[in-house]
Amino acid sequence: MGSEVRAVSAEQVALRDRLIDAGHLIPSGVDGVYGHSAAFEDLREALGTRISAEARTRGATRLTFPPVLPVRQLEATGYLANMPHLAGTVFSFDGDDAAAAVQGTRASAHEDWSEFQAPTGVALMPAACYPVYPALARRGPLPAAGAFIDAGGAWVFRHEPSTDPARRQIFHQHELVRAGTPETVLQWRAQWAQLGLDLLTGLGLEARLDRANDPFFGRRGRLLAANQRAQELKLELLVPIAGPEPTACASFNHHLDHFSSTFAITGAGDDPVHTACLGFGHERIVLALLARHGLDPDRWPAEVQDRLGAPR
Amino acid sequence: MGSEVRAVSAEQVALRDRLIDAGHLIPSGVDGVYGHSAAFEDLREALGTRISAEARTRGATRLTFPPVLPVRQLEATGYLANMPHLAGTVFSFDGDDAAAAVQGTRASAHEDWSEFQAPTGVALMPAACYPVYPALARRGPLPAAGAFIDAGGAWVFRHEPSTDPARRQIFHQHELVRAGTPETVLQWRAQWAQLGLDLLTGLGLEARLDRANDPFFGRRGRLLAANQRAQELKLELLVPIAGPEPTACASFNHHLDHFSSTFAITGAGDDPVHTACLGFGHERIVLALLARHGLDPDRWPAEVQDRLGAPR
Repeated sequence: MGSEVRAVSAEQVALRDRLIDAGHLIPSGVDGVYGHSAAFEDLREALGTRISAEARTRGATRLTFPPVLPVRQLEATGYLANMPHLAGTVFSFDGDDAAAAVQGTRASAHEDWSEFQAPTGVALMPAACYPVYPALARRGPLPAAGAFIDAGGAWVFRHEPSTDPARRQIFHQHELVRAGTPETVLQWRAQWAQLGLDLLTGLGLEARLDRANDPFFGRRGRLLAANQRAQELKLELLVPIAGPEPTACASFNHHLDHFSSTFAITGAGDDPVHTACLGFGHERIVLALLARHGLDPDRWPAEVQDRLGAPR
Repeated sequence: MGSEVRAVSAEQVALRDRLIDAGHLIPSGVDGVYGHSAAFEDLREALGTRISAEARTRGATRLTFPPVLPVRQLEATGYLANMPHLAGTVFSFDGDDAAAAVQGTRASAHEDWSEFQAPTGVALMPAACYPVYPALARRGPLPAAGAFIDAGGAWVFRHEPSTDPARRQIFHQHELVRAGTPETVLQWRAQWAQLGLDLLTGLGLEARLDRANDPFFGRRGRLLAANQRAQELKLELLVPIAGPEPTACASFNHHLDHFSSTFAITGAGDDPVHTACLGFGHERIVLALLARHGLDPDRWPAEVQDRLGAPR
């Protein structure tokens, strides 16, 4: 494998164990896949409601999408070349009665039955903004003011099993997407970088903004990452959760014309169309809050509870 | 393929087209995978809130789970033998820089790159109750009153692409699960069959309860289905959506000791532990409401709006 192995710290594993003991995380038997307590979900949903309210106030339209997308769409974006190690593709049984019987027997003995599986044409959602671009393109040319979509807290998949409770194989990414002129999009990203910082610091978290890069794969990936940093295309909000380094809890991505040209999103006039997105990691923010304010949300500072607007 | 092909009626396709024109469904390019408008999601969430409130009143504890589960768990339940055609398994890239380059080139040309994909150890959730059983087992012996879990409206996957808008590859199933003595579980199922009927008829839908069977695969499946019907293990609430036949919008399943023995859920005393589950199909119920009351929820009868408790 050409991808870097992420180190997991003792503090991260200790936090995971405390969260499991408190019932907030329900282990599935596979690293990075957890169920949640009602209290955890109440916090996560309150956070999502808060983010969506901020977006609606600023003119966002809400659209929601499922956790799978057409493979053809993933093929079109370059994701399978740039981040192949993270993508999950969906296979299903392709055979007759006899094959089903053999698959069933092997499965109950926990033996390999993958030879009976074939690609289905869908893949797991790699980023919650992906289905927004073809949906925008379907509508025809953008209005003069461009478009602002709130895709809500949607499930995304990354194949990177880890014992760090903040590194999930499947998690909620709350994506806001802006499309419009290059200037509109750049201003929007700057505005939301500040709004995101205010939101997290308002909840008592020590957040700071930094430039970042995507976890591109292999040797070619190191070049892509260096480019992305040099052009300041990706910013992240870093927040302490557990371990020596803070964790990225939100990212602000400027795509230039990558998605608008891939999906043929056209503008009102002659200006090129650019896009940007902002993704909040719901679970990471809830983990940061639990790590900061304690595992019992009823005992959090009243002002944090009020600002989150959690029902209690 | 040994599975039956489901016929799709002209009315079903016409409803899908009307929903797309109205913006409620956003086609993805793959049959049975859609995005939703804000209005559709508001209705779906209001329905979920209403079901969860009914369950909470009757003592349910809420737990939530992601759209994937360990393959080992799917292997243990017999799903891969009984319904192999519906299961989705997750594969991911397994290779080096050179393989990633070939996969990327083939992907951008929409050619076959499945040879670079290997099983990951997770599968898509086949039914929203599946992760509840090992979660219950982890807690040790059940209390005397058994357990009642609300797993919320969770995403489940079924590999059956269709142009019927009510037959999705991925949709929200709202599962309530009861574990306890055989008598407790049977009474609970009877109680909830009536509550479910009342809920749907209260929303102006013509619902009726009928016995049913799961879509088991192939020749062996026909036997399993006949058994299930003979023992009245599966009941469904049927509601008109589109087409000549009504559509199953909820199902009530009695598992006897299938899950309790598979996952070693033990009871308080010597009585055997049985389980039952009730799954509401969120999208199907919203489709039934739109088909019955019209595509603009603001113009629905006030009493339906009130009973749903939709925010407006």
